[in-house]
Amino acid sequence: MRKRSRKAAIRLSMESPLVGISEQSRGLPPGTPIYIGDREPTQAKLSIYVFDEASWHLECPATVAALLDLIDPDKVNWINVNGLTGGAVERLCERLGVHPIAVADVLNTQHRPKVEQYDDYLFMITKMLSPREDGSVEYEQVSFIVKPHLVVTIQETPGDCFGLIRERIETGAGRVRRKDSAYLAYGLFDLIVDNYFSVVEGIGDRLERYELEAARPADATEFMTGLQGLKSELLRLRRAIWPVRDSVAVLMRLESSAIPPDLIPFLRDLHENLIQVIEALETYRENGASILEIYLSSVSNRMNEVMKVLTIISTIFIPLTFLAGVYGMNFHYMPELAQPWAYPALWAVMVAIAGGMILYFKRKHWF
Amino acid sequence: MRKRSRKAAIRLSMESPLVGISEQSRGLPPGTPIYIGDREPTQAKLSIYVFDEASWHLECPATVAALLDLIDPDKVNWINVNGLTGGAVERLCERLGVHPIAVADVLNTQHRPKVEQYDDYLFMITKMLSPREDGSVEYEQVSFIVKPHLVVTIQETPGDCFGLIRERIETGAGRVRRKDSAYLAYGLFDLIVDNYFSVVEGIGDRLERYELEAARPADATEFMTGLQGLKSELLRLRRAIWPVRDSVAVLMRLESSAIPPDLIPFLRDLHENLIQVIEALETYRENGASILEIYLSSVSNRMNEVMKVLTIISTIFIPLTFLAGVYGMNFHYMPELAQPWAYPALWAVMVAIAGGMILYFKRKHWF
Amino acid sequence: MRKRSRKAAIRLSMESPLVGISEQSRGLPPGTPIYIGDREPTQAKLSIYVFDEASWHLECPATVAALLDLIDPDKVNWINVNGLTGGAVERLCERLGVHPIAVADVLNTQHRPKVEQYDDYLFMITKMLSPREDGSVEYEQVSFIVKPHLVVTIQETPGDCFGLIRERIETGAGRVRRKDSAYLAYGLFDLIVDNYFSVVEGIGDRLERYELEAARPADATEFMTGLQGLKSELLRLRRAIWPVRDSVAVLMRLESSAIPPDLIPFLRDLHENLIQVIEALETYRENGASILEIYLSSVSNRMNEVMKVLTIISTIFIPLTFLAGVYGMNFHYMPELAQPWAYPALWAVMVAIAGGMILYFKRKHWF
Amino acid sequence: MRKRSRKAAIRLSMESPLVGISEQSRGLPPGTPIYIGDREPTQAKLSIYVFDEASWHLECPATVAALLDLIDPDKVNWINVNGLTGGAVERLCERLGVHPIAVADVLNTQHRPKVEQYDDYLFMITKMLSPREDGSVEYEQVSFIVKPHLVVTIQETPGDCFGLIRERIETGAGRVRRKDSAYLAYGLFDLIVDNYFSVVEGIGDRLERYELEAARPADATEFMTGLQGLKSELLRLRRAIWPVRDSVAVLMRLESSAIPPDLIPFLRDLHENLIQVIEALETYRENGASILEIYLSSVSNRMNEVMKVLTIISTIFIPLTFLAGVYGMNFHYMPELAQPWAYPALWAVMVAIAGGMILYFKRKHWF
Amino acid sequence: MRKRSRKAAIRLSMESPLVGISEQSRGLPPGTPIYIGDREPTQAKLSIYVFDEASWHLECPATVAALLDLIDPDKVNWINVNGLTGGAVERLCERLGVHPIAVADVLNTQHRPKVEQYDDYLFMITKMLSPREDGSVEYEQVSFIVKPHLVVTIQETPGDCFGLIRERIETGAGRVRRKDSAYLAYGLFDLIVDNYFSVVEGIGDRLERYELEAARPADATEFMTGLQGLKSELLRLRRAIWPVRDSVAVLMRLESSAIPPDLIPFLRDLHENLIQVIEALETYRENGASILEIYLSSVSNRMNEVMKVLTIISTIFIPLTFLAGVYGMNFHYMPELAQPWAYPALWAVMVAIAGGMILYFKRKHWF
Repeated sequence: MRKRSRKAAIRLSMESPLVGISEQSRGLPPGTPIYIGDREPTQAKLSIYVFDEASWHLECPATVAALLDLIDPDKVNWINVNGLTGGAVERLCERLGVHPIAVADVLNTQHRPKVEQYDDYLFMITKMLSPREDGSVEYEQVSFIVKPHLVVTIQETPGDCFGLIRERIETGAGRVRRKDSAYLAYGLFDLIVDNYFSVVEGIGDRLERYELEAARPADATEFMTGLQGLKSELLRLRRAIWPVRDSVAVLMRLESSAIPPDLIPFLRDLHENLIQVIEALETYRENGASILEIYLSSVSNRMNEVMKVLTIISTIFIPLTFLAGVYGMNFHYMPELAQPWAYPALWAVMVAIAGGMILYFKRKHWF
Repeated sequence: MRKRSRKAAIRLSMESPLVGISEQSRGLPPGTPIYIGDREPTQAKLSIYVFDEASWHLECPATVAALLDLIDPDKVNWINVNGLTGGAVERLCERLGVHPIAVADVLNTQHRPKVEQYDDYLFMITKMLSPREDGSVEYEQVSFIVKPHLVVTIQETPGDCFGLIRERIETGAGRVRRKDSAYLAYGLFDLIVDNYFSVVEGIGDRLERYELEAARPADATEFMTGLQGLKSELLRLRRAIWPVRDSVAVLMRLESSAIPPDLIPFLRDLHENLIQVIEALETYRENGASILEIYLSSVSNRMNEVMKVLTIISTIFIPLTFLAGVYGMNFHYMPELAQPWAYPALWAVMVAIAGGMILYFKRKHWF
Repeated sequence: MRKRSRKAAIRLSMESPLVGISEQSRGLPPGTPIYIGDREPTQAKLSIYVFDEASWHLECPATVAALLDLIDPDKVNWINVNGLTGGAVERLCERLGVHPIAVADVLNTQHRPKVEQYDDYLFMITKMLSPREDGSVEYEQVSFIVKPHLVVTIQETPGDCFGLIRERIETGAGRVRRKDSAYLAYGLFDLIVDNYFSVVEGIGDRLERYELEAARPADATEFMTGLQGLKSELLRLRRAIWPVRDSVAVLMRLESSAIPPDLIPFLRDLHENLIQVIEALETYRENGASILEIYLSSVSNRMNEVMKVLTIISTIFIPLTFLAGVYGMNFHYMPELAQPWAYPALWAVMVAIAGGMILYFKRKHWF
Repeated sequence: MRKRSRKAAIRLSMESPLVGISEQSRGLPPGTPIYIGDREPTQAKLSIYVFDEASWHLECPATVAALLDLIDPDKVNWINVNGLTGGAVERLCERLGVHPIAVADVLNTQHRPKVEQYDDYLFMITKMLSPREDGSVEYEQVSFIVKPHLVVTIQETPGDCFGLIRERIETGAGRVRRKDSAYLAYGLFDLIVDNYFSVVEGIGDRLERYELEAARPADATEFMTGLQGLKSELLRLRRAIWPVRDSVAVLMRLESSAIPPDLIPFLRDLHENLIQVIEALETYRENGASILEIYLSSVSNRMNEVMKVLTIISTIFIPLTFLAGVYGMNFHYMPELAQPWAYPALWAVMVAIAGGMILYFKRKHWF
Repeated sequence: MRKRSRKAAIRLSMESPLVGISEQSRGLPPGTPIYIGDREPTQAKLSIYVFDEASWHLECPATVAALLDLIDPDKVNWINVNGLTGGAVERLCERLGVHPIAVADVLNTQHRPKVEQYDDYLFMITKMLSPREDGSVEYEQVSFIVKPHLVVTIQETPGDCFGLIRERIETGAGRVRRKDSAYLAYGLFDLIVDNYFSVVEGIGDRLERYELEAARPADATEFMTGLQGLKSELLRLRRAIWPVRDSVAVLMRLESSAIPPDLIPFLRDLHENLIQVIEALETYRENGASILEIYLSSVSNRMNEVMKVLTIISTIFIPLTFLAGVYGMNFHYMPELAQPWAYPALWAVMVAIAGGMILYFKRKHWF
């Protein structure tokens, strides 16, 4: 997988949508939680924010047991787990009473985004996107477990887009300190979706570069491969973001105490943002098709131009060369050869032929 | 963004559907109203029409507070705001009790058209289209807040298509002076949709020019780029108008006191107009595809023609040149060279070969 | 518009789907009836058939007032209006209590076919199609107002396909004299749909001509333009007929006293006919695509053939010409030139080279 | 129409989907039964099987009256009518109380398959398919009227696929003698659908022949026309079979005493068979598209090959011929000409140039 | 069929989707169970696992009667049948009270996957996929009959993917020994679906090889045929897996005692896996289209390159050859020939012409 990823930069971004699942999970009973993904096993890092309107504190305990002791049921608790290996996620979920199938989904980093309502918690899988340096997109799965007074977020690796919420918890800015766990979960989700915009804009910038190059690309094969790769990337993004949109639609329709009514307008807003992202992807896909058509048409035009040059030069000189050949023949009786006016006359004929041809091509708009 | 807009005239009209959102709103709590758009910040201009069947007057107060004092709850009030910057919109909406999320939508000029019913007002976002001088289309967002006896319209810039309603309020023509605020809002909406027709017709005219040029465009690359840009424009229009149509459908189904029953036939008429606009866009899209096929076919035909000329000239003269070459050789023993009839005989053979070729090509319908 | 229509015969049949609407209706309050269309204003012509099982009579009064006096509420009355200008339609509709929005729809000859049920009448817009002499299709809007004992049909111009119903009213043949106004309306509608068959067959005949020409069209540009125009015509027809089909489906589901139960099987039959027409259009569209592919493939095949001729002649003679050139050189020491066998030997070599080439091309199946 | 059918074998199978309808039925009141089809008028042939578990007999009466006398209401009666002309169908249907619109549908051989439930009978139209000798498909309409104890099947021509049911009635094999009229109708329907499989397989065999030919067809125009014709045939089949599938789905959902509950699993089986036929058609359609792409790609490859041969020969010999031309010039002062080593040296240069070119083309993988 | 399979390796994998059905089942009453498939008739092999939490045993009786005696109604029984011929399946199903139509479906190995609920058992048809050595996919039909305490699985041939369940029954690992027959059936189904992942990955690997080759395939015809065959394989897989997904969706919605509520999360997980497989197929299909476009574009680029070489060489040397021809003419009065500076001057002119041409082509970016 590692190797395949590296290759992807110069090829269609054809990362197998199934990679690793069958090898790693085969031979285990269904529902057995097992880590499925392509990152190096690292020890999961735990952190917990406990806050209410009056105060907040942040701890980074080393063990799940220590973490659970820190939960204060009268405040809002936000547990963040970075890293899926090492067993911490399983232990945490077990202690929180999460269904084993849901835990297996958390650990399967190829899982489709979804929302599921269990008796006493809400379970969500979503994707955090971030642009890589080479312009491609990194997909990181983020799972949410939302209980009253508790939000658990589980990420694959350190590094996320939640900095703003942390800042607001710490400074007390915005609504987050005054609201419940559902609002906190919404705020985190909102930041993930906000990030989609910049990822999609990055795609748009790459597309723009192809657009500028379309009429005369430096390297045709690279152009085609890159454009098709971008098309694949757009499809992958669409496939990642579409179920996120569905998840939000599900949340809006959920008649659950987990979703307080005053959160609905915020969810609706989130839903509209996701629609906007998806429409942008559609627009880019159509622009990509237009760029391809412009490229193909310009290839065909250049071919045409090449053919015309060949044809003009050939059709002008071939008859003239024939005439020169005729008067280069060694027949003993060629009366023209002896006439003093013959040579200049032939030149006149040749110029006339060439001129006639050029006029003909001019009239045909060949140049 | 400014720079990008200018470039658009000579390229696919590829204005990013997301531009500005992420940069401007990032780092703010969700739902914080903030202006998102690409126009210069200008002081919002306020105006209010207060009218009933008997009388009307127009004021242009400088401040929101002065404006609100002018509202007469026994008459119909139409407040128009030009310009989203300077804080006037936020202050006005706050005083009217508009939800902060709705205010944020008003200020986000990239928002999708929509209708939302709140407890005591109806909130609509729509797009006003106007043709630019270079043939492209300008999109301006217009938001409506409709309460009993009050309509607020919020535009991005001065200049709109509401002149007719103003005239009718002032002259008392038509129904608008005798009806309520819902009818006023309908009348304004109707003018916006009426304007779509002329924008779409403008697109049709540009398409017609491409159609006339399709069989022999002056500049192939420009032709292709322009046609693809037109295609993109059609898609953008469709994407802007489709949700407007949905909005009207939502209004028709809304069981709300905000929509009096005698307005329904008018809304149905509006709905039918929007369907007609969308069908016209579809027709243009299909015509665009036909034009492209005609163009590509004519390119290929011209190529064919070029090839035929090359082939005819080459295949006629290449064998003749060979013969001339043969009798230009310097072998000591070439008996033909000494015969007096040889030179005219060779000419006869050459004419026969050329004639035969020409007959062959004639029979093959090559010219 | 007149001018645009004439151009259409030699171009894509690209009549603007919006023509005239914006120019003519702009500046009027919504719902103001105004004639929108491209025909010369003519005085509307009125006629009325009054009949029951026992008797019938036909009158052609000059004014709407005289017409209304002729209505006999105990019989079936069929009022036909030819021509939308001159104000007769507006006066008639006002007297019959038709909603102003419906009247505006009658006068807008670009309106989509539809059915609407009002309190005491049924309102339908449909399209009458007739083939023009140049093979294109003429669209005429026919509106129906159906009340108990009264059917009003409003056409754009004189000339229709209702002759058969007139004949049956006058001769008493068929069921029409024994039935009510709903059956009369059905009978008229049925004749309109019957006419679709011959229009669609006409399209089929034109398509057949293109099919025969596809492998070798006389004029490639005309062929492509014509075929694409036909494709556009098929799309316009589909767009006109599809809502007619929807209208009939609406009529069948309408739980209204306007539709007597024994009319339902007839409506179902009408619905099936319309489906058959639409399926025929679909088939023609697919045939059109097949014809285009055959044409493009034959173009490419001919190109291939041209290239082969060029290549065969060139590759045979170019090496021979080179050899002739070699022995035409004037070097002082060219021992071959002095040998008496050299000239015939060279000929032998040349024939061998040419023969080898021909064999090679034969084996490659180039001819 | 006759003439058109014969042409179809060498062209797209473009039988007009509407043929004959408008000419033959125009001018008649709606619902008037009239024969619409393209077969010679023949006298309808009548036959009746009367059977129960204990006994059976078959009669072929000459008249409808005689036929009706033979019906035994205590047994199962199967009336088969071959031929739609001569008035027998109309008389029979009238005596059985069939609605005139349904009779008109029986006689319109272009009718879409459908199921309709009337008060005391079930009415079905379906299509019997059989392969013609030239590989095309013959469509014959078969109508069913199913009453308790009575099944009427009406075919266009003699010759059907019901032999097996006849055999089982006569031998008492299978369930048909022990069951009611609904089972008999199902059994007949099942045989019709069974026949679809062999027709579709025939199409598959023809497609296979095109597949084998795709890379190098003997006659390109014939190949394209044939392949497109096959594509059209697949579409026609799909259009014929799809409504049959819908009919069976309707039958399954029909809550009617006409469908005994123990027939439901059989109908479900029939439905699955029809889905399988339709999926096979889809697969063939996709295979057809693949064959076309292979063909087009191989055409383009051969073109490429031709171009390469031309280019290689031309680019090798053109410079050499130029050099030969140079030393064929007659300038008085050309010092090279007098050198004894000049001629062999030129040959060496020429061989070097040719060799260099060949190496260059080798490195470019041109041969 | 055997023969056809072998051919498939070098052609589109165009196995008839209908093969064998019509020949083998024609002439039999509907619902008569008959084996439809293309495998050699083999004696069915029977085996039965009987287990509960405390114990298990496995028997392989020779006859159906012996098998049925081994069923222990107080434990979970898993009967597996390998092979459809020899009558064992029919006898077993008859004894278990399975409907004849369901038995016929078991024996028809071309049947679509489905789920059907009968009064006292659940009937499922599914497909087990396994990769063949040549990279193609083998489809084996597996039918399930699930009763309380009894699961019957019927396979076409020995060899399956159920090894893991057998191991867990024997070792007592996982949940299977502690659960009921529904869980056993789920576990078996889950293994079948797990296997889809590796099959789809195999397709992905083959696609990757085509991707690497796309820009310069060794054999163009083989490349195209292979790629199109892969496309066909993807469509066949989709067609096989899609109804399996539907089946699981049906199972989830089934309000039946056959599905205990605690199985629902497992079924939901299965459903999500199947969606993931189908999305992977979609992704591969789109990648296949991208590869084809890259290939076609690279073909066209190479053609372009060939044309350019031809054109450059031709247009440089054709004028020069003409000049050489001119001074090879034998006119008596050609004053240039006698000048001593003429020969070097001509060389200078020729070099200038060639240089000018090369500069021109450089500026046109032709090389």
